[in-house]
Amino acid sequence: MYRSHTNGELRLSDINEEVTLSGWVQKVRDKGFMIWVDVRDRYGITQLIFDEERTPKEIMEQAKSLGREFVIQVKGKVIERQSKNRNIETGEIEVLVSKLTVLNASLTPPFTIEDETDGGEELRMKYRYLDIRRNPVKDNLIFRHKVTMEVRKYLSDGGFIEVETPYLIKSTPEGARDFVVPSRMNEGQFYALPQSPQTFKQLLMVGGMDKYFQIVKCFRDEDLRADRQPEFTQIDCEMAFIEQEDILNVFEGLTRHLLKEINNIEVDKFPRMLYDDAMRLYGNDKPDIRFGMEFGELNEVAQHKEFGVFNNAELVVGIAVPGGNKYTRKEIDKLIDWVRRPQVGALGMIYSRCNDDGSFKSSVDKFYDQEDLAKWAEVTDAKAGDLVCILSGDTNKVRAQLSALRMELAERLGLRDPKVFAPLWVIDFPLLELDEETGHYHAMHHPFTSPKPGQLELLDTNPGEVKANAYDLVLNGNEIGGGSIRIHDKKIQATMLKHLGFSEEDAKAQFGFLMDAFEYGAPPHGGLAFGLDRLVSILGGQETIRDFIAFPKNNSGRDVMIDAPAPLDDEQLTELSLKLNLKS
Amino acid sequence: MYRSHTNGELRLSDINEEVTLSGWVQKVRDKGFMIWVDVRDRYGITQLIFDEERTPKEIMEQAKSLGREFVIQVKGKVIERQSKNRNIETGEIEVLVSKLTVLNASLTPPFTIEDETDGGEELRMKYRYLDIRRNPVKDNLIFRHKVTMEVRKYLSDGGFIEVETPYLIKSTPEGARDFVVPSRMNEGQFYALPQSPQTFKQLLMVGGMDKYFQIVKCFRDEDLRADRQPEFTQIDCEMAFIEQEDILNVFEGLTRHLLKEINNIEVDKFPRMLYDDAMRLYGNDKPDIRFGMEFGELNEVAQHKEFGVFNNAELVVGIAVPGGNKYTRKEIDKLIDWVRRPQVGALGMIYSRCNDDGSFKSSVDKFYDQEDLAKWAEVTDAKAGDLVCILSGDTNKVRAQLSALRMELAERLGLRDPKVFAPLWVIDFPLLELDEETGHYHAMHHPFTSPKPGQLELLDTNPGEVKANAYDLVLNGNEIGGGSIRIHDKKIQATMLKHLGFSEEDAKAQFGFLMDAFEYGAPPHGGLAFGLDRLVSILGGQETIRDFIAFPKNNSGRDVMIDAPAPLDDEQLTELSLKLNLKS
Repeated sequence: MYRSHTNGELRLSDINEEVTLSGWVQKVRDKGFMIWVDVRDRYGITQLIFDEERTPKEIMEQAKSLGREFVIQVKGKVIERQSKNRNIETGEIEVLVSKLTVLNASLTPPFTIEDETDGGEELRMKYRYLDIRRNPVKDNLIFRHKVTMEVRKYLSDGGFIEVETPYLIKSTPEGARDFVVPSRMNEGQFYALPQSPQTFKQLLMVGGMDKYFQIVKCFRDEDLRADRQPEFTQIDCEMAFIEQEDILNVFEGLTRHLLKEINNIEVDKFPRMLYDDAMRLYGNDKPDIRFGMEFGELNEVAQHKEFGVFNNAELVVGIAVPGGNKYTRKEIDKLIDWVRRPQVGALGMIYSRCNDDGSFKSSVDKFYDQEDLAKWAEVTDAKAGDLVCILSGDTNKVRAQLSALRMELAERLGLRDPKVFAPLWVIDFPLLELDEETGHYHAMHHPFTSPKPGQLELLDTNPGEVKANAYDLVLNGNEIGGGSIRIHDKKIQATMLKHLGFSEEDAKAQFGFLMDAFEYGAPPHGGLAFGLDRLVSILGGQETIRDFIAFPKNNSGRDVMIDAPAPLDDEQLTELSLKLNLKS
Repeated sequence: MYRSHTNGELRLSDINEEVTLSGWVQKVRDKGFMIWVDVRDRYGITQLIFDEERTPKEIMEQAKSLGREFVIQVKGKVIERQSKNRNIETGEIEVLVSKLTVLNASLTPPFTIEDETDGGEELRMKYRYLDIRRNPVKDNLIFRHKVTMEVRKYLSDGGFIEVETPYLIKSTPEGARDFVVPSRMNEGQFYALPQSPQTFKQLLMVGGMDKYFQIVKCFRDEDLRADRQPEFTQIDCEMAFIEQEDILNVFEGLTRHLLKEINNIEVDKFPRMLYDDAMRLYGNDKPDIRFGMEFGELNEVAQHKEFGVFNNAELVVGIAVPGGNKYTRKEIDKLIDWVRRPQVGALGMIYSRCNDDGSFKSSVDKFYDQEDLAKWAEVTDAKAGDLVCILSGDTNKVRAQLSALRMELAERLGLRDPKVFAPLWVIDFPLLELDEETGHYHAMHHPFTSPKPGQLELLDTNPGEVKANAYDLVLNGNEIGGGSIRIHDKKIQATMLKHLGFSEEDAKAQFGFLMDAFEYGAPPHGGLAFGLDRLVSILGGQETIRDFIAFPKNNSGRDVMIDAPAPLDDEQLTELSLKLNLKS
């Protein structure tokens, strides 16, 4: 038996007990005549004491030889501490050691195993097994476990069945790139790893499973942006015989349950916002509504003078920065530089100071009078002491730019409090999205999403205007989930695929099994998927998903710890009927 | 709202309620003036009634046009049935329909959606979404969900943390073949899909996670035997600071919990059997101990006469078949034919009848007298009325042959009752196994398994004799799980890999990260993995794992429903820097 107790367990009530503990050496304080060793495991830290008077000499010597992260086992007696440490749960006791065994030695770790470590990101990733010993990482993984247990409990109690769908499926060129898996037994053929279990969950609905969920890994071979992973985890759900309202209620319930059980926060009914309104008011389909700073569209009150920049713009739009009038000229210039960075891409920024005396001072006083500026303040809801920041240009671009500015300023103003949770449904997404490069429309959600009733006809005349039965759940400015009511009619699905540019042949080859299924009694159905990595990190009050993944990959999709991916040997390639065809 | 109730919900207490139901048409009985329609969903069946006197004519007409598996929605009033059906929970009521909507029509399904279907295996796999509508398949999937929920609950309550390990890892030629995944972003390099999360769970132990579990998909590119799947699910576990005894207790507890919660069966402490005893008494490392028929080794009492077949054999071994003396000569000849089938491979079988009067009659009376035969009966524990069946030859082969015969006879005798559960730990497995083809030893469990204390030295002199800290959990003759105490010392791990034929270089390339981890304070650890597919099917009283997998693959690793794997288009191959290199 390696231990009678964990290192987080002993209390004053255990005084005088003979115990056995195991764990890692966190710290050795050697005063010569007395040595304290902190021994650590997942559950906590216990202080061991060795002293000249009470500890045999050879054990003192042993204790002196211990290094950081040595794995030890000790036997000893629980005694009361002289100077208690109220910061840790075992801080009132210590263990007077009578036997010490080194279970495994350790090299000096390449970074300190402390809450605040001296190790950089790359080093910590290479030695992730050491990083996991640190409380922040360990606690994140335990937190993630708690969240998934609660998700499963809530959904299972609600009659959802977790069904495992296959990982070795079929490649479909729709959406992102697939990871593929050569099949040795079927020469020249490949499986694909699922980007999501989308078609399978729809088939489960056709199969009468009624309420399905799965916490499942998904795979996308994308050029990785920061904080994206080639493999990620989804809470995937689907329901039959439901309307959008049913789905929103169930998953609002789930999210509220998590906020209550995990964060101990009660949240009111989630507000809902039309996609069009989200874009108009926040320039963004995942607005952070923990704070205001809503957009004010200024075309009517800014395009009547001789100011060409505004007059030539499709959209003139501003926000009021609370208390922003205290910014110096230099600070405002920096802000202008910030919006002109290539990542944001604005050409410039116009501003108007709202003075305490009710007057205004703008960067375009040459063109606009106090009455104009007062209107701008009114439209952007600016108060005395605020600063109105205005961007102008092409609607889509300028909205994205102002949204970026809004988020940046809110961050600087401390308005994005990770302890505040502001969930929001964004509904009525467009069905299609114009790809500006190719001029083609593609599905904004996915090709199985149903248009709003009666809008199918618009597909021919005005495809960009067709709204979908699609919805996103947004939490603190992050999309944590999204879904839609699906098409369950073969003809409509065929029409959709045609509009997305699939030939009849391609549609049959790729989605034939689904279209066939629709001919055998497909029920109305719909669903949604939450991004678990993101959800967990937001509930955990952080924004980096990597901190909540046990073994994440870096931005090149590499696992630097195990050094994967790696070359295959020729024999393996031959067996798979493959040859390398390197570009370089 | 598509429904106010499910089809399994309405009772006499709902009489006179106006309800809305949705579901599939199970059956239409049209008596002309009266039509009954059974409507089905996941939860049950409700009888709808349409009759000339109470139902508007156009709804009668509509009802007449319904076909099997049409998806319908009805509104109507709950009324008491005239002739009640006590076999279904809604059998006391029916719904008098006032409105009928066809939500989706259906082609006639290619097989009947009944508990006993007329569809063959291939057809049901192609239309798996229809097969899932059948109660036996649907119930199996729900059963599987219940098992996994209980597993998670038990382990989580026991302090285990579910940690997701990566799917895109690194290929290791140890064990079965890996499925590999070409990396587009790392040209010429490949990920591998995990055969199990073995190394990652060990790293989690090095990382101090202490108790880990995960229900996780694993992948093996094997030539598929019957009832094997290229992707399968494991309940994967690992613990630190434990000995074999701790692990056996925890997972015995889990199994007992499942038998209690799922099957409502209380099981005593699981017996334990040495691997060597299992082989000696049952010829098998996963003996079915629901029944006796233990092997009796007969060398001492059968090699003293002039019978060359026995005298030249390494092992002469028999079993007593309860009541087998009633077999006719013809039946026994058939049994001899059975053991001579190539799948079993015995050259012949000797038998001895145990007559009711205490005398014996054997097929080798020429060589052996009554006293000899009495000893055979004694050694095989045969009673009057039994039949002693004896095989002889090479020890390993003859044990396997007699084991097959024992299982076959038990099956015929009805001794393998799927409602009886007889778990068993088999312990002290050999560390290494001789590959008779290559003459090399390889790891019986895996290369991370630790030898029994003090046996490391035997590796050089007598590798086949080294016993491992390895154990299997056997349930009703099936291995449902297995595991081991791992090596946590870098030097011992290096020695093991050397003995398994890894060059120092290969060992470093493939397992370097694990060996490095062992230098930074690896705790003693061990674990086990259960095969979930198998576990669920046995708990469900069946032996075919495919029946408990939503979308299984066939014996060529194909998903015949979605028709995967499939060829890739050239563009995708080029992007992955690959070319086909077909053999044919």
